[in-house]
Amino acid sequence: MGNLAREPGQQAETAGLDDLLQRFQRNRATSEAICAPLEIEDYVIQSMPDVSPPKWHLAHVSWFFEAFLLVPYLPGYKPFDKVFDHLFNSYYETHSQPFPRARRGLISRPGVQEVLRYRAHVDRAMGELLTHPPRQQTLEIARRTELGLQHEQQHQELLVMDIKHILAQNPMHPVYRADLEPAPGAGLERLRWHDFQGGLCEVGHQGNGFAFDCETPRHRQFIEDFRLANRLVSNGEYLSFMADGGYARAELWLSDGWQMIQQQGWHAPLYWERLDGFWHEMTLGGLRSLDLAAPVCHISFYEADAYARWAGARLPSEAEWEIAASSVAVEGNLLESDYLHPIANLSDADGLHQVYGDVWEWTASPYRPYPGFQPLEGSLGEYNGKFMSGQMVLRGGGCATPADHIRVTYRNFFPPSARWQFGGLRLAKEI
Amino acid sequence: MGNLAREPGQQAETAGLDDLLQRFQRNRATSEAICAPLEIEDYVIQSMPDVSPPKWHLAHVSWFFEAFLLVPYLPGYKPFDKVFDHLFNSYYETHSQPFPRARRGLISRPGVQEVLRYRAHVDRAMGELLTHPPRQQTLEIARRTELGLQHEQQHQELLVMDIKHILAQNPMHPVYRADLEPAPGAGLERLRWHDFQGGLCEVGHQGNGFAFDCETPRHRQFIEDFRLANRLVSNGEYLSFMADGGYARAELWLSDGWQMIQQQGWHAPLYWERLDGFWHEMTLGGLRSLDLAAPVCHISFYEADAYARWAGARLPSEAEWEIAASSVAVEGNLLESDYLHPIANLSDADGLHQVYGDVWEWTASPYRPYPGFQPLEGSLGEYNGKFMSGQMVLRGGGCATPADHIRVTYRNFFPPSARWQFGGLRLAKEI
Amino acid sequence: MGNLAREPGQQAETAGLDDLLQRFQRNRATSEAICAPLEIEDYVIQSMPDVSPPKWHLAHVSWFFEAFLLVPYLPGYKPFDKVFDHLFNSYYETHSQPFPRARRGLISRPGVQEVLRYRAHVDRAMGELLTHPPRQQTLEIARRTELGLQHEQQHQELLVMDIKHILAQNPMHPVYRADLEPAPGAGLERLRWHDFQGGLCEVGHQGNGFAFDCETPRHRQFIEDFRLANRLVSNGEYLSFMADGGYARAELWLSDGWQMIQQQGWHAPLYWERLDGFWHEMTLGGLRSLDLAAPVCHISFYEADAYARWAGARLPSEAEWEIAASSVAVEGNLLESDYLHPIANLSDADGLHQVYGDVWEWTASPYRPYPGFQPLEGSLGEYNGKFMSGQMVLRGGGCATPADHIRVTYRNFFPPSARWQFGGLRLAKEI
Amino acid sequence: MGNLAREPGQQAETAGLDDLLQRFQRNRATSEAICAPLEIEDYVIQSMPDVSPPKWHLAHVSWFFEAFLLVPYLPGYKPFDKVFDHLFNSYYETHSQPFPRARRGLISRPGVQEVLRYRAHVDRAMGELLTHPPRQQTLEIARRTELGLQHEQQHQELLVMDIKHILAQNPMHPVYRADLEPAPGAGLERLRWHDFQGGLCEVGHQGNGFAFDCETPRHRQFIEDFRLANRLVSNGEYLSFMADGGYARAELWLSDGWQMIQQQGWHAPLYWERLDGFWHEMTLGGLRSLDLAAPVCHISFYEADAYARWAGARLPSEAEWEIAASSVAVEGNLLESDYLHPIANLSDADGLHQVYGDVWEWTASPYRPYPGFQPLEGSLGEYNGKFMSGQMVLRGGGCATPADHIRVTYRNFFPPSARWQFGGLRLAKEI
Repeated sequence: MGNLAREPGQQAETAGLDDLLQRFQRNRATSEAICAPLEIEDYVIQSMPDVSPPKWHLAHVSWFFEAFLLVPYLPGYKPFDKVFDHLFNSYYETHSQPFPRARRGLISRPGVQEVLRYRAHVDRAMGELLTHPPRQQTLEIARRTELGLQHEQQHQELLVMDIKHILAQNPMHPVYRADLEPAPGAGLERLRWHDFQGGLCEVGHQGNGFAFDCETPRHRQFIEDFRLANRLVSNGEYLSFMADGGYARAELWLSDGWQMIQQQGWHAPLYWERLDGFWHEMTLGGLRSLDLAAPVCHISFYEADAYARWAGARLPSEAEWEIAASSVAVEGNLLESDYLHPIANLSDADGLHQVYGDVWEWTASPYRPYPGFQPLEGSLGEYNGKFMSGQMVLRGGGCATPADHIRVTYRNFFPPSARWQFGGLRLAKEI
Repeated sequence: MGNLAREPGQQAETAGLDDLLQRFQRNRATSEAICAPLEIEDYVIQSMPDVSPPKWHLAHVSWFFEAFLLVPYLPGYKPFDKVFDHLFNSYYETHSQPFPRARRGLISRPGVQEVLRYRAHVDRAMGELLTHPPRQQTLEIARRTELGLQHEQQHQELLVMDIKHILAQNPMHPVYRADLEPAPGAGLERLRWHDFQGGLCEVGHQGNGFAFDCETPRHRQFIEDFRLANRLVSNGEYLSFMADGGYARAELWLSDGWQMIQQQGWHAPLYWERLDGFWHEMTLGGLRSLDLAAPVCHISFYEADAYARWAGARLPSEAEWEIAASSVAVEGNLLESDYLHPIANLSDADGLHQVYGDVWEWTASPYRPYPGFQPLEGSLGEYNGKFMSGQMVLRGGGCATPADHIRVTYRNFFPPSARWQFGGLRLAKEI
Repeated sequence: MGNLAREPGQQAETAGLDDLLQRFQRNRATSEAICAPLEIEDYVIQSMPDVSPPKWHLAHVSWFFEAFLLVPYLPGYKPFDKVFDHLFNSYYETHSQPFPRARRGLISRPGVQEVLRYRAHVDRAMGELLTHPPRQQTLEIARRTELGLQHEQQHQELLVMDIKHILAQNPMHPVYRADLEPAPGAGLERLRWHDFQGGLCEVGHQGNGFAFDCETPRHRQFIEDFRLANRLVSNGEYLSFMADGGYARAELWLSDGWQMIQQQGWHAPLYWERLDGFWHEMTLGGLRSLDLAAPVCHISFYEADAYARWAGARLPSEAEWEIAASSVAVEGNLLESDYLHPIANLSDADGLHQVYGDVWEWTASPYRPYPGFQPLEGSLGEYNGKFMSGQMVLRGGGCATPADHIRVTYRNFFPPSARWQFGGLRLAKEI
Repeated sequence: MGNLAREPGQQAETAGLDDLLQRFQRNRATSEAICAPLEIEDYVIQSMPDVSPPKWHLAHVSWFFEAFLLVPYLPGYKPFDKVFDHLFNSYYETHSQPFPRARRGLISRPGVQEVLRYRAHVDRAMGELLTHPPRQQTLEIARRTELGLQHEQQHQELLVMDIKHILAQNPMHPVYRADLEPAPGAGLERLRWHDFQGGLCEVGHQGNGFAFDCETPRHRQFIEDFRLANRLVSNGEYLSFMADGGYARAELWLSDGWQMIQQQGWHAPLYWERLDGFWHEMTLGGLRSLDLAAPVCHISFYEADAYARWAGARLPSEAEWEIAASSVAVEGNLLESDYLHPIANLSDADGLHQVYGDVWEWTASPYRPYPGFQPLEGSLGEYNGKFMSGQMVLRGGGCATPADHIRVTYRNFFPPSARWQFGGLRLAKEI
């Protein structure tokens, strides 16, 4: 978050807080709107250790405001419940002892109504803090509030991912929302390659807008000329890979990936199901037959990497992706499009398509610090830095990413085996 | 269930069904009453593989009536939902494929309201079946209904056990019912030994009342003279065992038990917690300080066995227990006493106390078939017989056992490591 | 060992020690003879946690004499190496800390030569102790020596079992001894049932010969009349069970057994291998085609129990077995027969065959203490008593049991899932 | 191996083969010399899944020559034993099915003598192949032989690592070689920082000498100016980190590392042991008291990374390391120095010390393909490429690396949790 404007006058700050308060309120409402279609029973379940119960998400993002803003900055603030500092701390080891992650689904109380009361309590207090901020601390309050909002947006996407995973455990294929936008019937665009010139390039965030610490500092990298596919890999293309023995040919796989698919018995993307000889996939709108033109989704890095090798190509590095994406408008099938599922490309214009939205694109780059990286101070320094091991970068946002949350320098990251995020791929090549 | 009267006249049968219907209705209401204090979120959780979500229990016992009575015997019966035959089959491998036990807590739907509708659907149909039973099948319907009721009573006790375990996961110590009967303040009765004459004895069920197949046939066993303690081992006595290094002295333990306490880090009964230097225990009425005169509870067979060895005694065999108990009235601190917790003995009369109720008493006997045992026919034969390996017998019922469910020949069984049932011990000795 | 004669005169004792010394020397030589065909590399391997490296066995049985006889009774005895008291203590928690069982195969030193030197050191000292026993302690020395010899005999059988398991890991099917007695070609005897009269019987050891503590005290049991098969179940019969879907029919299995065969993927006895459409089995003489008339071997209790259920019979209780066997001479295909493999019955005489030797017969009885059981004093009390949980009794000895080690009251025991011992079954029935 | 000279004339080739043959013979002798001090029992053990039994190493490197040279190129070559193609294939999934890695320690045969005969068989055949190579294939034979030699050198280092790990399992602390060079008594040199100029640099291998495919192609990278410590971090400095609570302060650790040290209970480097209040370490020369001036060794990437953070520094990237090292002579405490343990720096010259040898230096760089990387053709393509996931790069060689095996572009790699290789660290910083 290091790049909020650094020396605004006091007046500017107050104006900034007004605006922040409005964004705060909209943002908080969005989280609750995402959960609105759930039954209370859905809120409780942790379908695997990576998933959190929806009510935990709703409480945790509130705890973030309480722990990092209300307790330190709002005089006289009374925490809603002292145990929540234990229950809803996710992973800030230097703040308080987090409740064990894998046991989040064993805690029935506080229930949904109590969590909503907690949210209202925090909302009222945040309203007060942002309306009457203590002098001298306005800037830090603005910075932390901004971070809290970005944090809650990340959990909005996690909520969508986790809800999907929770419902998918059920052999009854429950429907999250029957009113989702239907996918427009579009054919598959021909794959075309776009060439990009390398050289000494700059990547990373710089300037006035918000960015996470891990996106900074902006720095130079030398990259060779490269080419990128104009669109994402489709379900139909992925089926060809499967039909060609993709999951049975060791030479296509990284060693770790080969082990993973053996152990897990993977032979198709997550959520795919073969019924009466046809492939279907579980979506948030229920079980649907597979749309061959839509981008393949819910694959691991290992699968993306194996597909690329099979296709005689490779995954782009995150620098390549950023350079190519920097000339593309930040728009696409994002959360607000209300598909909650990747869709086939609709545009026949030249240039790169599906760069933002639809699916997060696995890159070839491990998630490591940029040269000169400095984490945030204090417990907030745990936000990103400590995860820079064993994970791969994904770029571009997906169909559950809020539109004002994504940007060209955004670095998402997951372990190479993760499949429950909306993750797919775009091919790259040497020129 | 083999011992329902075998040749009643047709009239008697119909009268029997009327009575059964009334018992059916009372029984079904009890299950729902046990769950009434829960919040919806509590119904969903499976806190360990042995535990089932309360809403699963409510649905499963209904499925039992549907699968074994309504579908085969009620003409035109329509199952409430076809998938339920998969979701709510517990372990009848020869009936349909059971949904994996360890995943019961991952299924949010059907929700509580839907499960209650399912129950009402089954209740209506059972009402019809018991009122207008198909000719020629009345006897079998009566037998199976009786079995279904006994089955539901077992799940009533499981509900209480599982609810306790679910709530105990929560560091907030939620209270199941604040209105539970308080434990009467009673001192610890002096332990006295009662001598019993052995010889060629008969054990097992015979006669008109209901009994499970595993309690039959009544058969002869030769046992030596023995003595039994007049009451259960108390919390205070168990604390002495702990203070004497009970959990650290290998010579007191069976080899499997020694391994178990190392692996699990056990050093006190389940639900005990030391706060500010004093022992407390989680109860269904909330966290309470330990009642030293009350029977020790929530210990494994290994702990019961080690305690007995430390005390210079042993556990009784199930035959010894049955012979001793057969002269004692079937009454005690059972479900209807509404303590939902073992309490100190209140009687100063001679004879054995706390024989029924309070805690199930671990015996020295592995759960194996009686000589000449025959399981029920068909899928119902899976009810008891297939579990006769790796488990130990417990006798006498506990504070969550329905009063009309327990009897002198009743054989409960759990793996030697199980602690979440209300299990304690009474000492035995050679004469 | 409680039943060595208790009050022999001093002269008798010394004579006893002379005899013991000779038996000691023969016994010790046998252990080394069993290992003689091994290559040094074979001595090191622990092919699963239950198996011990052969050199560990050779050292451990020597440690037993050192720890329980030489150190306490031979004045001035110097242990060969102090660390051995840690390395070669198997499970006597009250003696010294045993080296972790599962890591025995990670210790290359002491090597085989060093272990043999250790044996020689112990042998010399034992010679001295038995020749010049300290006064007043002759009787205890005799008792403990006897126990040590019996103990070493148990390890002789374990050596044979473990060597087989170790060699069987190797896809090259190495041959332990090419000179083993070939199995005589015998047809399968017709199965006949023998009836036995029950009543109030006595079982357990009493008298002058050696017996383990767990075989005592001799006590009364009431058993019903029963019948036993005249011979063991054969490979050919077991193949019929397999062909009839034995491993795929849940109704034939105990619940634990059903889980076990799913998890482990068992569909045939251990060591069976199907090559070119025919069943073979790994033997100590190498890979052989299956002898249909020979007793089935290397099956778990679960498989024995499922087979018996499939055959409309059951396993005998250990009391039934003991009563039936008490009229049969203790002879059969034992270690000295030098087949090291079960063979078809050769006798056409009336009566029970294969009672001793060939395979240990799984019984229906859990391994629990006899009424009034008292373990040995001190650390030796850990010998048997602490294992009386979670195991089943086997009777009769197998093809690797020394002939003077087996007797009618002998109780062997293994967990119900164990298959690497020579274990099979004989059918029983109600009359 | 892509960079053997590509178009030598035929004469040059034959000369090359003569030279190769001599190197082949020396190289093969070295492997056997490393094993010479072992007892036969030591050759069999696999102390953890990452470790292989020494006799497996000796056989596997021979299999490499057999599978990739003798079978395809030597007319009439007869494999020593057909099963070896299964037993000694390490991980070439596209060649034949490898024997499961974790079970290598369960195979006693072939024994050591047989493996040595296998080696002699391969050596003779290789002698023939290199003396009379088939026309047209000389170049490919030379390339593959070179690769086989480099491969065997890698296994020479693995042998030393694995032997150390095997012996370290033994509470007796066996000594591998009592005649190892003693560490020269040297004080700890003051840590000085050396500045290096960044810019657009070239890294990676190019030219005539051998290099693995993963070291190519040479390519451009832009790096910022940086500074490196003149020497490795010492045991004494690492003790200060430990004394300052290094293993208990979450803020110093990557999230994965924090989890790892909790799970594994790590609180010091591997092989460290505290005896009577003083730190010792297990070495190949036996248990020694810790040399405070010697480089810290046997730490994971996580520990190296946490130490660097604690020290206010960071790990170098592999590009930084390569640029800094390119002006340093390739010499140091390597295999031939015969310490088999890292030693304190002896030089007081300016410049970087301990760059080659002593310990492999963990870098901050994940092991990923260089831009434009092409793996070798066929099964040999599995050599490096498939491991480019989940591992970190180490540079510079250690005290068990053959001197003619290491070079400035050499990329070693291990998972971040690996500790049994000789791995330590050098600090880096921004300028």
